[in-house]
Amino acid sequence: MTTHVEHKPIAITMGDAAGIGPEIIAKAYLQRPDLLQDCFVWGDVGSMRRAFRQVQPGGVPYPVAQIASPQDLTEVPPHCVPVLQAGDALPELPMGRVHAVAGAFAGRCVMQAAEAAIRGDVAALVTAPLHKEALHAAGTPFDQFPGHTEMLQAVAAGHLGRPVSEVPVRMMLANDELRTVLVSIHVSLREAIAAVTVENVLQTLLITHASLGRVLRRAPRMAVAGLNPHAGEGGLFGREELDVIVPAMQMARAQGCLLSGPWAPDTVFMRARKKLGLDAEFDVVVAMYHDQGLIPVKYLGVEKGVNVTLGLPLVRTSPDHGTAFDIAGRGIADPSSLIEAVRMARALLTS
Amino acid sequence: MTTHVEHKPIAITMGDAAGIGPEIIAKAYLQRPDLLQDCFVWGDVGSMRRAFRQVQPGGVPYPVAQIASPQDLTEVPPHCVPVLQAGDALPELPMGRVHAVAGAFAGRCVMQAAEAAIRGDVAALVTAPLHKEALHAAGTPFDQFPGHTEMLQAVAAGHLGRPVSEVPVRMMLANDELRTVLVSIHVSLREAIAAVTVENVLQTLLITHASLGRVLRRAPRMAVAGLNPHAGEGGLFGREELDVIVPAMQMARAQGCLLSGPWAPDTVFMRARKKLGLDAEFDVVVAMYHDQGLIPVKYLGVEKGVNVTLGLPLVRTSPDHGTAFDIAGRGIADPSSLIEAVRMARALLTS
Repeated sequence: MTTHVEHKPIAITMGDAAGIGPEIIAKAYLQRPDLLQDCFVWGDVGSMRRAFRQVQPGGVPYPVAQIASPQDLTEVPPHCVPVLQAGDALPELPMGRVHAVAGAFAGRCVMQAAEAAIRGDVAALVTAPLHKEALHAAGTPFDQFPGHTEMLQAVAAGHLGRPVSEVPVRMMLANDELRTVLVSIHVSLREAIAAVTVENVLQTLLITHASLGRVLRRAPRMAVAGLNPHAGEGGLFGREELDVIVPAMQMARAQGCLLSGPWAPDTVFMRARKKLGLDAEFDVVVAMYHDQGLIPVKYLGVEKGVNVTLGLPLVRTSPDHGTAFDIAGRGIADPSSLIEAVRMARALLTS
Repeated sequence: MTTHVEHKPIAITMGDAAGIGPEIIAKAYLQRPDLLQDCFVWGDVGSMRRAFRQVQPGGVPYPVAQIASPQDLTEVPPHCVPVLQAGDALPELPMGRVHAVAGAFAGRCVMQAAEAAIRGDVAALVTAPLHKEALHAAGTPFDQFPGHTEMLQAVAAGHLGRPVSEVPVRMMLANDELRTVLVSIHVSLREAIAAVTVENVLQTLLITHASLGRVLRRAPRMAVAGLNPHAGEGGLFGREELDVIVPAMQMARAQGCLLSGPWAPDTVFMRARKKLGLDAEFDVVVAMYHDQGLIPVKYLGVEKGVNVTLGLPLVRTSPDHGTAFDIAGRGIADPSSLIEAVRMARALLTS
């Protein structure tokens, strides 16, 4: 622990114990101890010990130290992995299968860590993957949440005393070179066009402004992509820019947003790309639909893409993959995306 | 002329004489004489001489040698720029303005060069930019063509003895790392979805198979992108993949196409990307709309994107910019895209 830690610790939630979560966390600690020095695992001590044994067969077991609260992190000796035990120890479970007990445990980790983040005890959450069916099998309250985002929205709404519908979130995809926030995600392209409304675009702009502004500590320079080729070319190839995007941008500007556009979608991402560490024209591109933003983010390598949930009163990043039950327990899972998610959480906290 | 020329010469049509065409051609010869050694200019000797004087003020004038036919290229001494004079010499014209005489001259260069390509006298056409208004001002027959593509279609249709509607073409965008062919181009995203029909997708697949197959000298491995996020995820986010794209792919396979997909649009381009000269999974991605294909092609730098017109009985590439009347005659135009277009034409001929 030689480097000065400038912020509260980062909690890595373990994810489903029967998936690749514990394994990729163990590998991340082994491969990038420097990067993970101010992190701890919100999970199960036994599962993490098993994961380390699995990825270091025959080696000296990597020491796992149980902590009782995030504050204990400062007392953990170097080269130890701090694990905050989220309730009763999990039994050893067959890997790659749906277990209600693993679903409930994984859900509990996320909700406890989110509460700690909202209290200010942890700086950020990095969430290893959950399994939807295990969460469903876990019953109340976990079965009402399709995934992390909804769980985090519920914790935030409870904290803010508002209904969940009043805690709108947006997905930001980011890597070292590019950040993009999406107006809509998992709907058909036809429905995505219909979702380009003044209300949705405005909400996306305001969430991006507030959330990214908090981490950059200044108003982010937002580039707004058009919906149509050449951003509609003055109405020749579609009118959504004139009728929807520009009015939403005017309202957002009136609320302090720093924006430009709507730009031609085929060149705005290139202009927003941070090359060789140099500053780009924009801090983020607001994309009108899933693939518009995800094609450029993933183009340089899918393992580099990290999800960031914006709109919540906490920083949350996650790797861009699932529990991979098909390879869980075989020691072959790739920790790159989790490592990137940790790096992104740190960058969001210190940039 | 030390390198062995393996194919017929490549004709670079000069484009509008009042635009940046002559200037970027002159710069390309000065910067990359090796690359342009088996090329000649289909244009105007006087305009090219003026362009060389402009980009080499005070220097020894670069020798411009007039040739009477593509076959004369072998007799041109090294370090000379061969120019095939396309009709009467052009007078010196004020730069950056619309001139009927420049429009007609530029149009004549393209039509003559296209006929030479169809006859087999030139291997490929690289077309410097035309100006639409100048073409229009030139009157019959040039005013009936919005641009190069329509002119080339007309020459090809005349040669094939078919109506122009039976010479369908598609735009391929390519750089060193990625090739993509687009089902539709300059229409709104809403209309682009409507253009995803079995007929249009099938036609795109067949044109790509035939045209790219001719230059690769084998069946190209085509990746077909989906229209919707995750390629519709089995119908959850849209049914175009199931109802349109898969049936079109089945028909194309029955005609000998080598295809896979429909793939998730956000990862297919990454998989098709040729990194560090290594082979990629696919030779080309068939994209369902303009920005789906153009975002990844342009992401690494717009100056690297080259247009290739497929479906014609000739190879034709062009830089991805216009006549730039605003900077014509100032000596500051960037020849990168033209150089890439020459490189692409050569790659298409020799790969």
